[in-house]
Amino acid sequence: MPPQYAPSLRSRLAPLLLFLQTGFIIIFAFYTEIERNGNADDFSKRYPEFQDVNVIVILGFGFLGTFLVRHGFSGSGFNLLVAAMATQWALILNGVESLYYRGRLRIDLKSLIVAEMCTASALISIGAVLGKTNPVHLILIGLLEVSGFILNKWLLQFLLNTRPLISIMMLHIFGSLFGLMLTGTLYRKGSEQRFEKEKFDTKMGLFSMLGTVVLWMFWPSFNSVLVDDRTPGRKLEAVCSTYLALAVSAVTAAAMSVLSNPKGKLHLIHLQSCILAGGVAVGVSMSAVRHPWEAMIIGFAAAIISSIGFQYLKIHMLLAFQCHDTCAILSSHALPGLLGWIAHLVLQIKDSDDHTVAIRFAVFHICSLLITIALSVTLGILTGLLIRLKFWRPPQYKNCFDDQAFWEVCSHLL
Amino acid sequence: MPPQYAPSLRSRLAPLLLFLQTGFIIIFAFYTEIERNGNADDFSKRYPEFQDVNVIVILGFGFLGTFLVRHGFSGSGFNLLVAAMATQWALILNGVESLYYRGRLRIDLKSLIVAEMCTASALISIGAVLGKTNPVHLILIGLLEVSGFILNKWLLQFLLNTRPLISIMMLHIFGSLFGLMLTGTLYRKGSEQRFEKEKFDTKMGLFSMLGTVVLWMFWPSFNSVLVDDRTPGRKLEAVCSTYLALAVSAVTAAAMSVLSNPKGKLHLIHLQSCILAGGVAVGVSMSAVRHPWEAMIIGFAAAIISSIGFQYLKIHMLLAFQCHDTCAILSSHALPGLLGWIAHLVLQIKDSDDHTVAIRFAVFHICSLLITIALSVTLGILTGLLIRLKFWRPPQYKNCFDDQAFWEVCSHLL
Amino acid sequence: MPPQYAPSLRSRLAPLLLFLQTGFIIIFAFYTEIERNGNADDFSKRYPEFQDVNVIVILGFGFLGTFLVRHGFSGSGFNLLVAAMATQWALILNGVESLYYRGRLRIDLKSLIVAEMCTASALISIGAVLGKTNPVHLILIGLLEVSGFILNKWLLQFLLNTRPLISIMMLHIFGSLFGLMLTGTLYRKGSEQRFEKEKFDTKMGLFSMLGTVVLWMFWPSFNSVLVDDRTPGRKLEAVCSTYLALAVSAVTAAAMSVLSNPKGKLHLIHLQSCILAGGVAVGVSMSAVRHPWEAMIIGFAAAIISSIGFQYLKIHMLLAFQCHDTCAILSSHALPGLLGWIAHLVLQIKDSDDHTVAIRFAVFHICSLLITIALSVTLGILTGLLIRLKFWRPPQYKNCFDDQAFWEVCSHLL
Repeated sequence: MPPQYAPSLRSRLAPLLLFLQTGFIIIFAFYTEIERNGNADDFSKRYPEFQDVNVIVILGFGFLGTFLVRHGFSGSGFNLLVAAMATQWALILNGVESLYYRGRLRIDLKSLIVAEMCTASALISIGAVLGKTNPVHLILIGLLEVSGFILNKWLLQFLLNTRPLISIMMLHIFGSLFGLMLTGTLYRKGSEQRFEKEKFDTKMGLFSMLGTVVLWMFWPSFNSVLVDDRTPGRKLEAVCSTYLALAVSAVTAAAMSVLSNPKGKLHLIHLQSCILAGGVAVGVSMSAVRHPWEAMIIGFAAAIISSIGFQYLKIHMLLAFQCHDTCAILSSHALPGLLGWIAHLVLQIKDSDDHTVAIRFAVFHICSLLITIALSVTLGILTGLLIRLKFWRPPQYKNCFDDQAFWEVCSHLL
Repeated sequence: MPPQYAPSLRSRLAPLLLFLQTGFIIIFAFYTEIERNGNADDFSKRYPEFQDVNVIVILGFGFLGTFLVRHGFSGSGFNLLVAAMATQWALILNGVESLYYRGRLRIDLKSLIVAEMCTASALISIGAVLGKTNPVHLILIGLLEVSGFILNKWLLQFLLNTRPLISIMMLHIFGSLFGLMLTGTLYRKGSEQRFEKEKFDTKMGLFSMLGTVVLWMFWPSFNSVLVDDRTPGRKLEAVCSTYLALAVSAVTAAAMSVLSNPKGKLHLIHLQSCILAGGVAVGVSMSAVRHPWEAMIIGFAAAIISSIGFQYLKIHMLLAFQCHDTCAILSSHALPGLLGWIAHLVLQIKDSDDHTVAIRFAVFHICSLLITIALSVTLGILTGLLIRLKFWRPPQYKNCFDDQAFWEVCSHLL
Repeated sequence: MPPQYAPSLRSRLAPLLLFLQTGFIIIFAFYTEIERNGNADDFSKRYPEFQDVNVIVILGFGFLGTFLVRHGFSGSGFNLLVAAMATQWALILNGVESLYYRGRLRIDLKSLIVAEMCTASALISIGAVLGKTNPVHLILIGLLEVSGFILNKWLLQFLLNTRPLISIMMLHIFGSLFGLMLTGTLYRKGSEQRFEKEKFDTKMGLFSMLGTVVLWMFWPSFNSVLVDDRTPGRKLEAVCSTYLALAVSAVTAAAMSVLSNPKGKLHLIHLQSCILAGGVAVGVSMSAVRHPWEAMIIGFAAAIISSIGFQYLKIHMLLAFQCHDTCAILSSHALPGLLGWIAHLVLQIKDSDDHTVAIRFAVFHICSLLITIALSVTLGILTGLLIRLKFWRPPQYKNCFDDQAFWEVCSHLL
């Protein structure tokens, strides 16, 4: 029988949420202002893009996480909760620089979009620990991950002069490594056996299918939203490349799912986790992709690597490294992200005529990866150590992957 | 056993629908024309906004109403049916003025948007009686509510010179008071006991979660769509304010849900009904909100009031006032709407330098609320009295909240 | 017990997918380029339209096909797979002409949109054979249908000088006739009895309701996306006409569903299949519709014809012509499409002052229908004969409409 009373929620979650939210309101009250001088054309161009990113972060990631048979409320509900907190925090952190120079933290559609993309990196991290943590953990992870990711963006910008388009697209690599380190640190004895409720069924599979197709449809917006539209055709290139990479990825993932499954059947969760690999890889290599076929080859390779990762590395990570990865973020974000990083390097070197420039780029590119990895791994472990404290009242082993620990389920309304 | 034959549908619904629809077609044939002189830029700016409002009205409200365990088909299907009728009727009523002056009722994207917003007020009303009425009732309520709401808009415009932005945003107050009066008038003995099927479960909770996040994501469009884009930055202000208010609202609602639940758990339906409170309140006070932090404070207060309303007032309304409110529109629309009205008053007075202007505004503002309340309450009661007639064949008590009364469920296709 | 091993998938599907995908990548590598000279304004106008069409094709058609009680994974998953393949193929075929003249196959948002609309015609065809075929069949059908549809577009263009707006809107007629011929050719003995699993239930009905409302909401984009925006007001006309036709259609379909059901109840699948009839019919007659009331009358007639088709013709087609039509594409696309064709003819003749022009138009219009019918019927039968080959390992009779034949269902994740 599940506990009738969830102490972690009332004595931890509610005060934490109210305290942080009050703090955020105070910061916004003293330090922010709306950017009022933007023109109306810009607004109407950017608003549909903002909505697409919003749909990806809230609906896409939210429903992607509903595949576990008794974990649907948590999967979608906690995603919304973390997103609502992390976006506010990212708005504040991203604005610190303009606060320093101009005395005010300006808010416009672009800053909202960037904040939501930082949030996306936190939501990826959370995928690794979903079902094994309580919402207090998730909020803390979300806020710390966003802080780390923005710190990484600053470091890359000040040390290597990396453009935001490239440093923000590192979100897949940063988020997934952070999440993997976190879940490794949080490992509990016994997790190498199956969790009783860690399975999917027909209905929950369809809810997560909804999240998947939403991500698949709007991914071209996610990859193109930060691309500068002053150079004619760059945005179009980004959209078409991503679209084609996703199409190739979906087809290849289906073939790989059939080939790698012991019964020769398609596996829905395998498919869902590999279908977006092409989009992720093209996103990371976006600023070097010039032709659709380059994107298609990247999508093809990403789907193959992601499939192999899902089928063979996931279980290996658990048994060898004690790293239980609920949403398979290793194969859906880390591997395709690294592939995209390599593709970026190769394409850029191939396209540059001058050796000096190519070597200079390679050095900077490798440094930016090393910084990202170092920071995400360190912060992931530190966050894991913080989260392990008994103070936060982690869910009992038998309550993992179960909504009943935190939600009223199936009750009358009155 | 449910009845094998639903007399209310064949002998009442079908003739009513065909009669009204034929009538609408005739009116459109003689009195409407498309506005052909608009420019293409305006169209492409406004079309995404129109689609967002459409998504809110059809997908958002439709799936929000699917939380009841055996009432999903009715929740989403009747919503579509009422919306399809009410929007046509609102297009006609909203055009009466231009019919008078120009001899023709012009249709363009703006008139479609306004018509859908009037429909939204009817869909709010219907939330109060969902599950206890048949579709004939719902169609009648929809058309009468829309008529009343547009009458209210005219009254405010002619008596007080209120701008459409403000009078249309009264839709939350008008719709919810109308619905509450209606459900009070329709009260049947025995409803103070639990309805057997008035409960939710994991799967239906997720369908309504889908509706909730759709509303949450597109609410900034709903609040900003009527804001004039000639003043630079006004639309951006509306979007950012609504977005931040919604984020604060989601966080606060989660904290309140945990604090007010006897078992200290989150309650999905509680969350869904309070998460949008900030958006509603900011919508009503939109034309006075100038800074994001004002919107955030409004969102904070709205979520608290809405949560208290859901947890304590809903049952009180039933036992003390015999007012059974299925979708808790009191706490999700009426209370945040009134809070928004107060916030509008306070902000406007705070911002005006001149006492005379402030007092003049306050008088007008209070009058507009009184007119709205008087009209919605009166029309709600009158509609309730009309709907109570046995002629419309109300569903039997035991068939309440059950799709089987009106739908073929689980049948073979041939 | 279902077979533990699905031989059709591993030995047929995976090689076919990998072979075709590699081929597509090679074609794209040698013959395509992104159109880089488009201006940024055009891009931001067209991108939301592209996303709407994308949502229709992936989310709309995908979830519309999930209504069968044990066929949800296949309904949505195979739709995505076929769409990903067919869109790439359509991009190539549609570009052959520009390849001939300019040496390169240009890709831009418009070519993506047209490719997705060709894909939509393939997805309609697939509706007729859903549940009775394996994914290898579906891929082949998708690619052959798209090839046939684009051949039809060329024929109409070169023989009759038909504009793309009109020839592409023939997709409903072409796709549904192709699908009906196909399912007739694939008929197996015993299908006149009920398939055990060909039924729907409450949850799956709601998933397909989601697909339906998504199609309903975005159908105005589907009909207006190809309309030229240089003539002011034409796009607005297309949007308003489609919206009103859909509203009328929804109301009329509900009335007809109640009238034609033996128990006098609403039938969800009936409703879902007839609710879009107005949008289909107005789409086909789009270039002749000038007034909203014309669209409304077309929507009214389309819903009535579609309802009669669903209720009486579907079973008749099965028993008399041995044509088992899973998604009722006869009533949802073929009949409304033909009605739209007639409406186009009537409206165009009514509007033309000159007899010679009217007769000339009528001759061309009739010829274009005859060519479309001849080609779709011939190719449908030929495709059916190809698909019947044992080589493709058709699913056994008892495995029809069952995800278990092709998918891992309800399994643990590790």
